[in-house]
Amino acid sequence: MVAHAPPTLDDLGAAAREAARVLARSSSNQRADALLAAADLLESQADRVVAVNATDVAAAEADGATPTVLDRLRLDAGRVAAMAAGLRKVAALADPVGQVVAGWVRPNGLRVEQVRVPLGVVGIIYENRPNVTSDAFGLCLKAGNAVLLRGSSSALATNGAIVEVLGDGLAKAGLPVGSVGFLAEASHESAVAFMRATGTIDCLVPRGGPSLIAAVREHATVPYVIDGDGNCHVFVDASADAGMAESIVVNAKTQRPGVCNAMETLLVHRQIASTFLPRVAAALEGVELRGDEATRALLPTAEVATEADWATEYLAPVLAVRVVDDLDAAIDHIARYGSGHSEAIVTSDVAAADRFTAEVDAAAVLVNASTRFIDGEELGLGAEIGISTQKLHARGPMGLEALTSVRFVVRGNGQVRR
Amino acid sequence: MVAHAPPTLDDLGAAAREAARVLARSSSNQRADALLAAADLLESQADRVVAVNATDVAAAEADGATPTVLDRLRLDAGRVAAMAAGLRKVAALADPVGQVVAGWVRPNGLRVEQVRVPLGVVGIIYENRPNVTSDAFGLCLKAGNAVLLRGSSSALATNGAIVEVLGDGLAKAGLPVGSVGFLAEASHESAVAFMRATGTIDCLVPRGGPSLIAAVREHATVPYVIDGDGNCHVFVDASADAGMAESIVVNAKTQRPGVCNAMETLLVHRQIASTFLPRVAAALEGVELRGDEATRALLPTAEVATEADWATEYLAPVLAVRVVDDLDAAIDHIARYGSGHSEAIVTSDVAAADRFTAEVDAAAVLVNASTRFIDGEELGLGAEIGISTQKLHARGPMGLEALTSVRFVVRGNGQVRR
Repeated sequence: MVAHAPPTLDDLGAAAREAARVLARSSSNQRADALLAAADLLESQADRVVAVNATDVAAAEADGATPTVLDRLRLDAGRVAAMAAGLRKVAALADPVGQVVAGWVRPNGLRVEQVRVPLGVVGIIYENRPNVTSDAFGLCLKAGNAVLLRGSSSALATNGAIVEVLGDGLAKAGLPVGSVGFLAEASHESAVAFMRATGTIDCLVPRGGPSLIAAVREHATVPYVIDGDGNCHVFVDASADAGMAESIVVNAKTQRPGVCNAMETLLVHRQIASTFLPRVAAALEGVELRGDEATRALLPTAEVATEADWATEYLAPVLAVRVVDDLDAAIDHIARYGSGHSEAIVTSDVAAADRFTAEVDAAAVLVNASTRFIDGEELGLGAEIGISTQKLHARGPMGLEALTSVRFVVRGNGQVRR
Repeated sequence: MVAHAPPTLDDLGAAAREAARVLARSSSNQRADALLAAADLLESQADRVVAVNATDVAAAEADGATPTVLDRLRLDAGRVAAMAAGLRKVAALADPVGQVVAGWVRPNGLRVEQVRVPLGVVGIIYENRPNVTSDAFGLCLKAGNAVLLRGSSSALATNGAIVEVLGDGLAKAGLPVGSVGFLAEASHESAVAFMRATGTIDCLVPRGGPSLIAAVREHATVPYVIDGDGNCHVFVDASADAGMAESIVVNAKTQRPGVCNAMETLLVHRQIASTFLPRVAAALEGVELRGDEATRALLPTAEVATEADWATEYLAPVLAVRVVDDLDAAIDHIARYGSGHSEAIVTSDVAAADRFTAEVDAAAVLVNASTRFIDGEELGLGAEIGISTQKLHARGPMGLEALTSVRFVVRGNGQVRR
């Protein structure tokens, strides 16, 4: 339940900065204890959280929210248990804080180390899934950070209730409740103020659609990491094993079409188009195909792909298909239309694989595997706070390391510079 | 010499993006050859560059530029030779591109690598030192990047002449001349457009004072790394060796007061203040001291330090001095006033050293060494493009690695996700 006079961003920011200093001194065990305590409390107070959530859901329903939106917003005992399980899983991950990333000794005897440290205060702006509240808290705390959360208006009461439970978990472990701050204000102005909280927020992770990302680019003065779109391609080379290519294409498009690492455009080498395209089209039953002229000559039922199709992240069972002359044309197409997320080639030609991995500029490039693997869990990072499509700080799936910084620690015995 | 119709940012950006794709395929040898060719050309054309520079210097003089500004702007044969030597040195550094930062195999057989790759196009906004033109080009090209340069109006002709020479070096090595682009427009509007060139600039490195940094925070939509202020502290603990503390304090303040890693505030443990302060004050001859009450009780000639002094980066032979009760008070003072650059403790107490390095939140923390070592060269990074005071991407002195990104490369043999 949200308190009657909810704390302002300034209040929350001051508490979070203070908490971050305490967390910087805390042990990994202590932070894991807080996560485990929060997980237990989430389960023991699941009924209350679900009841609060029901008021949010009812209000959203009255406001005419779509079934998809309502489903994302809704909590039940199972979903609360999944949130608790997520916290326990994060508690068990290896702690990145304190890792010595590199170290050497200078000729003058200075010992130099680069040591992984928490970022400090992480800000998260997110939309209506309440599980982000505990997931983001878990990853941030594990990496030694305080977190400031700013969720959507539709989940205000739910998020408030969850944050209260998380705060109780922190208190049980002797850590400051200010380690998690929840901005119970969901206006556009509050989001902009959040993005401009220089000196308070060390790193902002916006989790939402293109309009949120555009707002961050426009307004943010705090450092941020963009979790961007995935306009992902699979290029089936002339030398590809057709069976392998078919299963990768079908998996990349249909295993879960609504996510950012699903394929949106299929590129097929002209040499094999006449045999491969009919085969893969049959396997992609239920997927709407939109092709260029050469594709439509082979698949007459395909719709016409327009310029806009090449640039669209459908997030749906729709696939743009283009026949390309060669590897260069495939790389050019991806350079022009790709969003820098995940790009795959299916090939048996070493030289083609080498050029594709060297020249395609994306967070992840894959050879002979589905784009669907580009995900923190699947790559073995343990968990993810998002998938960065920018090139600075973190690129691709962001695990705990992306929530840390590195500091130089230099030890001497009286050295001065000449 | 600048051409009559200088290329627009759009022209330069398109050429740089195209060049970046070529550079991504270039070998390290080829890029080193371009740097060496540019170095030779800078020397053989030094007379022409110096002559062009003389027109900029004359114009700045007529505009009433200060001697300091004129000195920064002025080139002579020796300074051009130093620029050439800088390019040769960078050519000889180890290439970060292609480094496998980490790699592992997933249970399903997927082989995952994180590979260091160029950023793409780096933008540099800088002030009137023309050597930045070749230095920034050298580091960016070495790391496989194209670079877009936007210098100050006072150095317009000089920078144009230098860029022409650098372009000739690229051409000699068979690399695209568009790898270095120079925006021959120095209006405020052109700077803002540069900061907003999303999709063109992958990373902006502003090199300038607080007003430039503020403009970047306010206007930039491209990713950037802040090369910020250095309000650096030295804390002399009760257990410090007085001789070591004296030499570190004198070095940190006086060896080169005008740079960001010079000390600006000295914090002294109350227990040793009465012996240490008179001693260090004598050693700091010529430095204006501004102290708190306890300092002034021991050093009656010191001026009164106001609240503003604690927050000031003097970049001059002025030092704020404060007596603190203990390590906690020192850490609190630094947390409140420090700019997150370089912070040092002088101590013989292991526990104090450990707490200081763990709790002080700065790009670099030093134990028993002068803050003046926090510099790419001194730490052994080979060269530096700046010193980051932000926590994302790069922190502290930025060498070649800071000009790269990391990409996931995933290799399989037909894996699909279940």
